[in-house]
Amino acid sequence: MSDQIKVVLTEDELPRQWYNLAADFTNPMPPPVDMEGNPIGPDALAPVFPMNLIEQEMCTDRWVDIPEEILGLYKIWRPTPLYRARRLEKALGTPAKIYYKNEGVSPPGSHKPNTAVAQAWYNKEFGIKRLTTETGAGQWGSALSFACELIGLECKIFMVRISFTQKPFRKMMMRVWGGDCVASPSTETEVGRKILEEMPDTPGSLGIAISEALEQAVQREDTRYALGSVMNHVMLHQTIIGLEAKAQFEKIGEYPDIVIGCAGGGSNFAGLAFPFAADKIAGKDVRIVATEPTACPTLTRAPYAYDSGDVAMMTPLLPMHTLGHTFVPAPIHAGGLRYHGMAPMVSHALREGLIEANSLEQLECYESAVLWARTEGFIPAPETSHAIAQAIREAKQAKEEGKEKVIVMNWSGHGLMDLTGYEAFFDGKLSDYSLPEELMARSLQSLEGLPKPPA
Amino acid sequence: MSDQIKVVLTEDELPRQWYNLAADFTNPMPPPVDMEGNPIGPDALAPVFPMNLIEQEMCTDRWVDIPEEILGLYKIWRPTPLYRARRLEKALGTPAKIYYKNEGVSPPGSHKPNTAVAQAWYNKEFGIKRLTTETGAGQWGSALSFACELIGLECKIFMVRISFTQKPFRKMMMRVWGGDCVASPSTETEVGRKILEEMPDTPGSLGIAISEALEQAVQREDTRYALGSVMNHVMLHQTIIGLEAKAQFEKIGEYPDIVIGCAGGGSNFAGLAFPFAADKIAGKDVRIVATEPTACPTLTRAPYAYDSGDVAMMTPLLPMHTLGHTFVPAPIHAGGLRYHGMAPMVSHALREGLIEANSLEQLECYESAVLWARTEGFIPAPETSHAIAQAIREAKQAKEEGKEKVIVMNWSGHGLMDLTGYEAFFDGKLSDYSLPEELMARSLQSLEGLPKPPA
Repeated sequence: MSDQIKVVLTEDELPRQWYNLAADFTNPMPPPVDMEGNPIGPDALAPVFPMNLIEQEMCTDRWVDIPEEILGLYKIWRPTPLYRARRLEKALGTPAKIYYKNEGVSPPGSHKPNTAVAQAWYNKEFGIKRLTTETGAGQWGSALSFACELIGLECKIFMVRISFTQKPFRKMMMRVWGGDCVASPSTETEVGRKILEEMPDTPGSLGIAISEALEQAVQREDTRYALGSVMNHVMLHQTIIGLEAKAQFEKIGEYPDIVIGCAGGGSNFAGLAFPFAADKIAGKDVRIVATEPTACPTLTRAPYAYDSGDVAMMTPLLPMHTLGHTFVPAPIHAGGLRYHGMAPMVSHALREGLIEANSLEQLECYESAVLWARTEGFIPAPETSHAIAQAIREAKQAKEEGKEKVIVMNWSGHGLMDLTGYEAFFDGKLSDYSLPEELMARSLQSLEGLPKPPA
Repeated sequence: MSDQIKVVLTEDELPRQWYNLAADFTNPMPPPVDMEGNPIGPDALAPVFPMNLIEQEMCTDRWVDIPEEILGLYKIWRPTPLYRARRLEKALGTPAKIYYKNEGVSPPGSHKPNTAVAQAWYNKEFGIKRLTTETGAGQWGSALSFACELIGLECKIFMVRISFTQKPFRKMMMRVWGGDCVASPSTETEVGRKILEEMPDTPGSLGIAISEALEQAVQREDTRYALGSVMNHVMLHQTIIGLEAKAQFEKIGEYPDIVIGCAGGGSNFAGLAFPFAADKIAGKDVRIVATEPTACPTLTRAPYAYDSGDVAMMTPLLPMHTLGHTFVPAPIHAGGLRYHGMAPMVSHALREGLIEANSLEQLECYESAVLWARTEGFIPAPETSHAIAQAIREAKQAKEEGKEKVIVMNWSGHGLMDLTGYEAFFDGKLSDYSLPEELMARSLQSLEGLPKPPA
């Protein structure tokens, strides 16, 4: 049909395996290491993650079967539709075709449950009764609450205090799904009590929340920790997005010239991009672009180094593009893109020349998001607006060149819980912000003395 | 597939006509009348609605073609999936099959855009530049803002002041879609200014907001008014829901024994139910159940009478079940079900024996909504929880009787903008409430002296 908007798949067409890019890298990724630079084995991670997920973390098989029960839960919202943004194309007057994968249709409203459901299932399978995690604005905490409730696990979420107070709606969502969400620092952990004693009025931080979640995970035999991005197994679970997209493009006889995703920890980007990266390794001509905020320019400006995933340095050292684990990003509204590091697999893909990266200012992203909502209808999350802004740039470029490019982007989530950001934008309260050189240099000092990955 | 959850239709399978139950009533509906009881003609409605919608309001054709441009906009979120609630069935241990039509997938999150898009299109076609409306909690105002932006009309929304202040998120949604939403009473209308002079601190009311919206519609030649429920043309537009559902049941070789929808003004209920009511008229054995709150028991306890659609009596008199236009419902969280009357078509269907009605207490509805979110994943709107509670009752009944009933309900919208109601429920702050006899009797006094419909 000439005016078709959505390409839908039936549940029978849901991919039954995840794709692992680690199998196809030309050069293998450097391993995670300890403070002395020695590669760590599975046992070092055992107090934090269940062994079946640790095995998946280190696995280099190209294809990993998706367990039946996970497929059953994916069917609540998957396969997600591949949309064509026809009204946006028209507004731009571009000959480009803009497609987007709508991951906002999941119950928590983003791509996060793709891995939350999988992680909850593997933990349950391993005999774990309870998962802990941290959450900033609450996107990941609500996805994990949803997953734990449906799988049958308890879920404990440490939410950064200032978000807990200022953004109560995500917390209420977690509660509806039975999640036990407390403000961090809390009185429920040693580290929390200690910090509260010293700084009773602290607004909290993601670093503190991670430390509390990890403390409870390592102290209790029935408890493990779940991470919403960065780890290899998270990238693996998210590839369901790109695998579906490829099946959908096949249905309409198209293939993208440009693949776009926003990148904070890297998981939604990897989810769409990696199955296309596999084709690129096999010789296909496709550009793959990760976009990030100028306020947190991990892929575009930060060095590739060994660094810890958390401020308290409780995780092993991971090889990644990083601004340093002490980096405190500016309070932009795209909370999900405010992370000091980038997933090792995404970082490696950049080094291997499989992907490129670009950074974008906040105002251009909000302008793009508003244009999107007013043409395509759906209101995007502030994170997602970074993919939209890039897609619009590419579509304008195609117009200048008079080329009918095929663009696909990951529409990682809706913005219905993030409307205060739009309000601030309309009221002229937002501004652009690029990370200053001297601030970056100071933050990078936290990498001094750490082992270095091979050049 | 034995574990299929969703029945999806492609855009090619989208119904291309709306169904009009008025063509099939055994006894015709009484007409709207003026204060003397004389049937009103199209001209009486012309200052408020465009003539093409007035014609549709009075039309008795069985099938009405859906204009191509409306179909194009429907495709943004339609056809909506028909889900089977397998995990809820399991939790209930029922032999019943529970299906639900997920109308929460639209950009504003409910069934409302089915008619908002249609009304905006017909107004544009008629040469109108601007629509006005009122909104309580904001569901309808956001749907109309969305529709006007995509069609190319200005949209002015008068939002009850207390909601405007206490529930800022729907207001922000309207702004993202370019809607101009002001607190009512406002200084922009005569009626608003007059009320503000007398009562500067008034919290406002739906009645006042309707009066302001109507004033601007009748005063400006380029402006008309849009209503989100009650009217015949609204029921017509919503039948796309039931027509899709029938096509989906045909795909899986099933047909429902019981059809359920919650009813405030009646439009989401009618949307699912009327195409099945047509089958019932033709001899099919199907039960159709409308559910409403005990706090606002229009269909279950109120008389069938001629009454005005608004407090200020600016609309013609409509034949309907009504608690009286001066009725002020208790502040239950299901704001969309707090309306004194019931759509004339739904009221007539009850008199014709095509449907039955039931009223439900608030706590049972919230308990049902939480069970739903924890089994099916999606968080329902408080209005929708009234359909869920009834479906659960029917499923339990089927279990007692050992019968494999097929139940379908309209899942009219998600509750992501209504999480404070859940919070109040968890905190034990909600209670049950049935409208007291004496309060109802007092409110019904506002019907005295008005013409009566034929018995």
